[in-house]
Formats: sequence, C-alpha cells, structure tokens
Amino acid sequence: MEIPFNKPYLTGKETAYIEDAVKSGKISGNGKYTRMCQNFFENKYNFKKCLLTTSCTDALEMCAILLNIEPGDEVIMPSYTFVSTALAFVRQGAKIVFADSRADYPGIDEDKIEELITKKTKVIVPVHYAGVACDMDKIMALAEKYDLFVVEDAAQAIDSYYTGANGIKRALGSIGHLSAFSFHETKNIISGEGGMLGINDEKFLKRAEIIWEKGTNRSEFFRGEVNKYGWVDTGSSFLPSEIISAFLWAQIEQLDKIQLRRKCLWNQYYRLLKPIEMYGNFKLPEIPEYATNNAHMFYLVCKNIKTRTELIQKLGRENILAVFHYLALHKSEFYHEKHDGRNLKNCDKFADCLVRLPLFFELGSDEIDKIISVLTQSLAKSN
Amino acid sequence: MEIPFNKPYLTGKETAYIEDAVKSGKISGNGKYTRMCQNFFENKYNFKKCLLTTSCTDALEMCAILLNIEPGDEVIMPSYTFVSTALAFVRQGAKIVFADSRADYPGIDEDKIEELITKKTKVIVPVHYAGVACDMDKIMALAEKYDLFVVEDAAQAIDSYYTGANGIKRALGSIGHLSAFSFHETKNIISGEGGMLGINDEKFLKRAEIIWEKGTNRSEFFRGEVNKYGWVDTGSSFLPSEIISAFLWAQIEQLDKIQLRRKCLWNQYYRLLKPIEMYGNFKLPEIPEYATNNAHMFYLVCKNIKTRTELIQKLGRENILAVFHYLALHKSEFYHEKHDGRNLKNCDKFADCLVRLPLFFELGSDEIDKIISVLTQSLAKSN
Repeated sequence: MEIPFNKPYLTGKETAYIEDAVKSGKISGNGKYTRMCQNFFENKYNFKKCLLTTSCTDALEMCAILLNIEPGDEVIMPSYTFVSTALAFVRQGAKIVFADSRADYPGIDEDKIEELITKKTKVIVPVHYAGVACDMDKIMALAEKYDLFVVEDAAQAIDSYYTGANGIKRALGSIGHLSAFSFHETKNIISGEGGMLGINDEKFLKRAEIIWEKGTNRSEFFRGEVNKYGWVDTGSSFLPSEIISAFLWAQIEQLDKIQLRRKCLWNQYYRLLKPIEMYGNFKLPEIPEYATNNAHMFYLVCKNIKTRTELIQKLGRENILAVFHYLALHKSEFYHEKHDGRNLKNCDKFADCLVRLPLFFELGSDEIDKIISVLTQSLAKSN
Repeated sequence: MEIPFNKPYLTGKETAYIEDAVKSGKISGNGKYTRMCQNFFENKYNFKKCLLTTSCTDALEMCAILLNIEPGDEVIMPSYTFVSTALAFVRQGAKIVFADSRADYPGIDEDKIEELITKKTKVIVPVHYAGVACDMDKIMALAEKYDLFVVEDAAQAIDSYYTGANGIKRALGSIGHLSAFSFHETKNIISGEGGMLGINDEKFLKRAEIIWEKGTNRSEFFRGEVNKYGWVDTGSSFLPSEIISAFLWAQIEQLDKIQLRRKCLWNQYYRLLKPIEMYGNFKLPEIPEYATNNAHMFYLVCKNIKTRTELIQKLGRENILAVFHYLALHKSEFYHEKHDGRNLKNCDKFADCLVRLPLFFELGSDEIDKIISVLTQSLAKSN
C-alpha cells in the first residue's frame, strides 16, 4: 500500500531507554520505567493510581476481577466495540447485556441504558469511541441511582477530556470507578501491545496491585510494608516487561508533539470533507460540547454498506488502505445465541457503514490531499 | 550488591531487531519476529506448534482454558512451585491438589501422584525444577491409565531434555499434551517478561490460536482460510508485542553460546563444592540419568533453615546476593484453608533449606571463586 492505514511512529529514544533498562539489570515488570509511566499518567490525568498492563484486554480483566464479577452478574456495554470489552467480563462468568449506539455516536446510547438495568446488573462499561467522550454525567448518575460500578473503556481515549454540567473538565478514564487504556500500535502513543488500568476509587488500590502481581503481595514487600510475600489472592501476570515500559516512556515524552500533529491531520480531513457532506453520501463525526477530540481516529459514516464498500475499493485501487471497524458483538458466532434478541439498529448501521481513514503521525498533508481527491470523486455527487 | 543474583544479558542485536520491527510498520503481536521465534522452537524442540505469550502465567492460563477446566475439576501439581502454576488453573475454577516433592528433587514426587488421583482429576502438572526433568515416563503412564492431561510447567526448562526407557531423547515441554515456558529476565534466554505455550496434541492447535487472539479467528483470516473474522470463543490477549519477540529473537540467536557459558559456570560451582559436601551441611543437586542439565540454576539444599539463613547473611556481608526460592503453596494465605491438610515434608524442606547462588552469563569465574571461598568458610566444617 502506498498509504497504509496505520504506521507506528518511533520518537527516536525508544531503543536507548530499552538499553538503559537492560544495563540497570532490570527488565522484568514493575521497574523504573513502569513507575515513570504510571506517575506521569497519575499526575497528568488525575488518577488515584495507574498500573501498566500487557494489553487493554488485561486491564479490563483486572477490572472484572476487582469488581468480583461472578456467573449471573450482568454487565451493560455497547455491542459496537472491540471483542475484549466483553471478553474480559465473560471470562469471569458475566452475562453481557448489549446496548445500542446513539444514532450520531458509536459509543453507547446513554439514554438506552436505564431500561437494561436489572437486579443482576453490576457494571456499566461506556466505550469512548474514537477518543470522544460518552456523556459521563448521565452514566455516573445511573450508576449512583442503581448502585452500579462504571468501567470506562478508554482504549482509544488517552489525552481526551469530558466537561460535566459542573464545568469541571476531567480526563477520560478518571471519571468511572475504574478504566482501561490501550497502547496497541494503532493508538496515539504506543508500545506494540500494551495497556493500563486506571483506578479512581480508593478501595481498589491495594487489591489491584496484588492481582497485577500474580495474586501475591510482592509490591507491598518491596516497599517494606510486609516481611515476606506470598500467595494471597487471585490474579495473573498482568504487568509488562520494562522493555515495553521503556518504549512507552519515549512515546510519552513526545505526547504533546504527537497530539498536535494528529489534530492537525484530523482537522485537515474535516475541513476538506465538510463541503461535500451536503451530497448526503456520508456523515462526518461531530464532537459534542462536553467532549474533546484527541484525534485518535478519523472516520466517516457512509449512507449505506454499498457506498462504503465502493469507497474502500476505490481507495484501494489508489493504494490507500481504509478499513471498516467492529462487527456487532451481539451477532457474533460466540454470543448471538446468548443475546436476548433485541434489535440494535444503530450498532448495525455503524458495523455496516463506518469507514476509518489513514491517520498517523508521519502521514503527510499531501497524502491527505490525495485521499481527499479520491473521496471527492466518490462522494461529491448526488445519487 | 557487588555480585547480584541475576543480571540480564544483552546479546547486542536486541535493539536493532526492535528498530527493524518498528520500521516494518508492525509492532503489535503475531508478526515476523513472533513467527521466527515460534518456528525456531517448533523445529528445534519438536513441538507441533508454539505460541509466544506475554508470560509463562499466560501460557498456563491458555492450557487451563484449552483443557476446559471448570469448577470442581482437580489438578495435581507440586506445592513447591511458583504461584502461577496453581493460579492459572484456579482462575478457571480448579481445585488444586498439591503433591509433595521427592526427597532428592524439588519438582514433584512421581510416585506420590497416583494416590491423589480421583474421579475429578483432570490434569497433572509436573514442574521441571531448575530445568531438570521430572521422570516423564512415570507421569505419562499415569495420564494414560487414568485418561488425564499432562501440562509440563517448563518455565525453567528451555533447551533441556528427557530420555525415556525407550531411549528416545525428547525436549522438555514436548512430551505432555501442552507445556508452558518462561522468558522472564531470570531465565536462560529472556525478554523481560514473556512466555510460550507448547502444543503437542494436535487437537488443540486450532483452538489455541483463537484463544491467543482474544477469542477471534483472526489468525485463520490472515491466512485466508475464512472470509472475515469475529468473536468465536473465549480467550484473552495472550500474544506479546513484536518488540518483545524481536528482543527474544536476538537471544535465540545466541542460545548455544549462552548455554555453553552457563553450563561452564554451573560445572565450576559443582566441582568446587563437591569436596565440601561431605561435611554434611548441604546437598548438591544431582542430575538423574534420564535428564539433562540446562544450567538454569545452581542451588544447594542446606541441612536446616538456620544453616541457610546464616549462609545467605554471610554471603550478603560479602556483597553477594544468594536467595531462597518458593514458599509452600499449600501453606499460603490464599490456599491453606483449601488444602486437605496432608503434610508435605519434602516441600517444606525445600522451602526452608534451598538456596540459589548467582548464575548469569556475565558472571566471572573469579566471582565464582569468591563465592566459593565464602561458602567454604561457612560450610566446610563439622558441627
């Protein structure tokens, strides 16, 4: 492909920091670079505590364990999301109750959550699609009313914010009880595979560290808080190698530069496509007033699947890779028989019609111009 | 510490391969370096298939999922092992039935397994302690007799072998139905945190790939075997970043050199300590005829805990870090109430008396001489 969908960006210091970690004699988990990354995120985004993980999936699994999810518990989340959002809770035995998306937003329809709440509901998992906030005031109010937990799936939402009715602007992932981030190679800052658990409710702090370290109180031991460490709880090996954390640290150092560039590219797409939206062949994403745009993704919603298929093919012929996104989880081979049969029409629309355009740090403005010219040929016409 | 217990060794090409992975545009999982590592292990050690994982814990969890472990199922393993051996099966709901160690070997007493088998037993998990084989003929015969699965915990056992009564020499991890390896920084070849699932029974091949890729049939999709991929099973994000696999590949390239050096150091320890074993203060490890020694670890078993404590302190005063190893899992805070109360005296002995000496690629022969001189002062005397 002449223009790939994604290209991981090396800031330049990744390998130097990896060598530094090796020379320090410590490349297993929970070392210097892990702590530097965690401290950075805690301070910048105001989490009570962060723990790096080997993937966002693992961070979500930690949430499910921390919330003591058991067979019979129900978890409400959008069907239009990555499989891990559901899988992490399914591994603990949860029943997933899939909510529809909003007509204008793939994340979750905040107004359709309440009707899904039962006595068995334990958690709501909003997904901040494309790094754009769900309306967290609505979701947190429901959680309070029904005594539920909120886990923010912030996989795509690093460095993005939500401003509630009280006027306070808060980082995504710092609002619910717990949150999960991804540093997968397609994200704004990356470590190949990687993730992070954000903890906002203090009652989870101690147990989270234990679950992270294979059910042992090793972290307390190394801080000198206990005399020896042993097996005290369930858990897994959720912590990443220092090799991964050192790589991520180099990315973090360039966060502002990366964000600036991505937003510039995003705005270029938006500015050039806005004039041809009027032909009715697609809709552009709109950022609600309560949300910021972290420029994680640039997507269009085509008017139907035929338009999307033709668009992807046309871009492909010009060596430009554009891709669709999620399949509806409520229709998946694994879960469709467990789904209660409700029709989720907005989810289905995004599954059929949403297309993601190339967006990465090293994408050139001239390349966007080329992409736009193909889009214009396809979409700037009345049918 | 002047002489640390462990020091990760950089072969020199790790960061070049990481840069190569980044430049190729692929640093998420299941890329070129992951496949190179897996192919190497499959060919060298004769596994049907290997899958790299983010940790040995994750590889063990994959085993528990593949074997459909459910609440009520019993899994037999030594109590003298790392917490992950048990934890991975506990996460699926298993009851762990802890077996004692042999008097002369910390792994598992093969002759005490049969009496622990019940109708609920599903798996035996031998642990190849220090990379030295359990007597696999005995264990595989029991598995066949009672229709059980065998998962080899080969965390420490890379590049080590077992020769059965039939005279065939097989790599550890290639004998049971499944096996799990570790590339944690303390192992012979390393990637900071990291592991590998070895698959020897063909019936697990297809499902293992799905479980590895978050319950999706993505691997089949990329091979062109299915038209689209989706959520088809349980699983997790078990696959490591290409950053980790690229690092591991540089280690693999130097495997023979690393093994030669480690064996040389191991033999130096053994040769110099053998003459003072007669004082009765410690026992040296002995390698059974059916096993090879991969020089993963050099340990002594002191005659009692007092001798061990004094030895560790004495070495510490000379800035030499020697460490004990596992606490008995059947006595852990998490599991002692679930244990059936059997006394596991050999396990307790190793928990109290085993001490591990520094052993790593860059350890100097002169440093071993220094360690031996401290050991001689402590241990070459009749009490």
